[in-house]
Amino acid sequence: MKKIINAPADVVSEMLEGMAAVQPRYVKKLLGFNVLIRAQPKKDKVCLVSGGGSGHEPAHGGYVGYGMLDAAVSGAVFTSPTPDQIYEAIKAVDTGHGVLLIVKNYSGDDMNFDMAAELAQADGIKIEKVIVADDVAVANSTWSIGRRGIAGTLFVHKIAGAMAEKGKSLAEVKRVAQKVIANVRSMGMAIEPCAVPEAGKPSFELKDDEMEIGIGIHGEPGTHRAPLQKADEITAALLDKIMDEGIFSEGSRVALLINGLGATPLMEQYIVAKKAASYLKERGIEIVASQVGNYMTSLEMAGFSISLLKLDDELEELLEAPADTPAFTRR
Amino acid sequence: MKKIINAPADVVSEMLEGMAAVQPRYVKKLLGFNVLIRAQPKKDKVCLVSGGGSGHEPAHGGYVGYGMLDAAVSGAVFTSPTPDQIYEAIKAVDTGHGVLLIVKNYSGDDMNFDMAAELAQADGIKIEKVIVADDVAVANSTWSIGRRGIAGTLFVHKIAGAMAEKGKSLAEVKRVAQKVIANVRSMGMAIEPCAVPEAGKPSFELKDDEMEIGIGIHGEPGTHRAPLQKADEITAALLDKIMDEGIFSEGSRVALLINGLGATPLMEQYIVAKKAASYLKERGIEIVASQVGNYMTSLEMAGFSISLLKLDDELEELLEAPADTPAFTRR
Repeated sequence: MKKIINAPADVVSEMLEGMAAVQPRYVKKLLGFNVLIRAQPKKDKVCLVSGGGSGHEPAHGGYVGYGMLDAAVSGAVFTSPTPDQIYEAIKAVDTGHGVLLIVKNYSGDDMNFDMAAELAQADGIKIEKVIVADDVAVANSTWSIGRRGIAGTLFVHKIAGAMAEKGKSLAEVKRVAQKVIANVRSMGMAIEPCAVPEAGKPSFELKDDEMEIGIGIHGEPGTHRAPLQKADEITAALLDKIMDEGIFSEGSRVALLINGLGATPLMEQYIVAKKAASYLKERGIEIVASQVGNYMTSLEMAGFSISLLKLDDELEELLEAPADTPAFTRR
Repeated sequence: MKKIINAPADVVSEMLEGMAAVQPRYVKKLLGFNVLIRAQPKKDKVCLVSGGGSGHEPAHGGYVGYGMLDAAVSGAVFTSPTPDQIYEAIKAVDTGHGVLLIVKNYSGDDMNFDMAAELAQADGIKIEKVIVADDVAVANSTWSIGRRGIAGTLFVHKIAGAMAEKGKSLAEVKRVAQKVIANVRSMGMAIEPCAVPEAGKPSFELKDDEMEIGIGIHGEPGTHRAPLQKADEITAALLDKIMDEGIFSEGSRVALLINGLGATPLMEQYIVAKKAASYLKERGIEIVASQVGNYMTSLEMAGFSISLLKLDDELEELLEAPADTPAFTRR
């Protein structure tokens, strides 16, 4: 697969240097580490550190800024960041009020964030961690024990970020992050694969009339392959599975995220959004906020995921609070 | 090429209905027309109407909202909107202060916006029109006499929109739109084609090691095909051509737009951004604002364009003014 890069080994560092070079109002790169931190840090607040493998852009560096993350740690493509990277990020941002680590549920990420937490705690830094596991597709996956963390993580960044920006304590920021995690569910599908730059070839193959349902954000398998269906049928199938969770019901207020996986045109994402809106309306579920676009991608994979977050007054207020980052701005 | 749609004939109306359904704070769809207008119109201002063929999402409906457009008119995929659609959009938004039509330079668009303008003028509506022709690649193209209008149009929407929001006159809004047009230049390239839904097959073919330089946003040819180069080489080649215009020089302050054409990962766009930043720095040109992402796409085409806008104090202030639309928000 063709790519617009210089050398496969340099894609992550060059991307982060590019972000720092053209988005200096938002981010700067930590010297010698693939870590972006806020260009204009705020003193006296709890800090949020997120991250994971690269290839999910704008996650995670795109969410560093006012009202969201304080640092994002980037591993190699689809590879967990190392403990030392995460540790450097924590040290760079901590203001003495503690750091919340936001980790998607992959075994490598979980282990490495834990090791970094231990190093930081040995320095006297207060650390808490939350694990996002919003993907309802599979009970366990190639790289996770338990459910995977995928696009619903956006809501954790946004809402916990707003809570931290208000000057709340580490315990309070963690509480609201956990509340998001308890109330967000996602599921995805793909019609075309992606290729890790260093590998050079697609990480899986799909036939011309085939789709993969329940796929993860690293090309790892989902629940099944099936003949490609219409957008409405696919959307209903993903939402059926999300509804099976028993969280969303008549009278629920939700935030909707239609997330493109990299190569799916926004046109198609809004066709999916149309069906999602009618599906939810039929069930008496009210959409009070929506995001449609590429928020947690898988390189050039074609496909999308749907995330639903059940809101209460607290979550809605924090979701609507101002934010200003390279990839997510709210007035 | 696989698509996540229901029926090729319905993609535009379904997309717009989807936008209206999930973004009701920003837009509503004009009954019976593929036109999005502001959900919360402001009285007593000049209104901006833009549009063109569909397939360029988030352009144009994604830019309807506070500080940018008042209406966006969507033709069929890669096809000019009809005069009656444009006329309905004009009538729906005019507040008596006049309407500025923002048209990208394609013969069909120009003609149909003109016909709509005549109809509106017959109703006593004040109309002005600007033509964006920012693409430096080719002197004339498949569908244009003179240069094509491409991603630089984003800056026209943003800056003229901010001027209108300040309550300035139609003449003043047009003046500043013309100033943007005089000072913005763009050029693009592609590594993979796109497919119009009704056609079902790619609109052109590129070999596995080939790229097309200077391509338009409808798959129409550019300046030449060449073996795929490194990101840095491609970026420098596009910028060289933009520099040949003689607009940008040592001491210039610019806004930079790296625009993904649909399927190009943000990772790759930021690798391009890194080179663009160093290229401009070497020439003493200062980047004071940047956008990196999918702003004016060509369905699932893989590739990107670079746009540079030379700023003066007036343009910079208007570029930084607040905006709030589905696809572009500035605090």
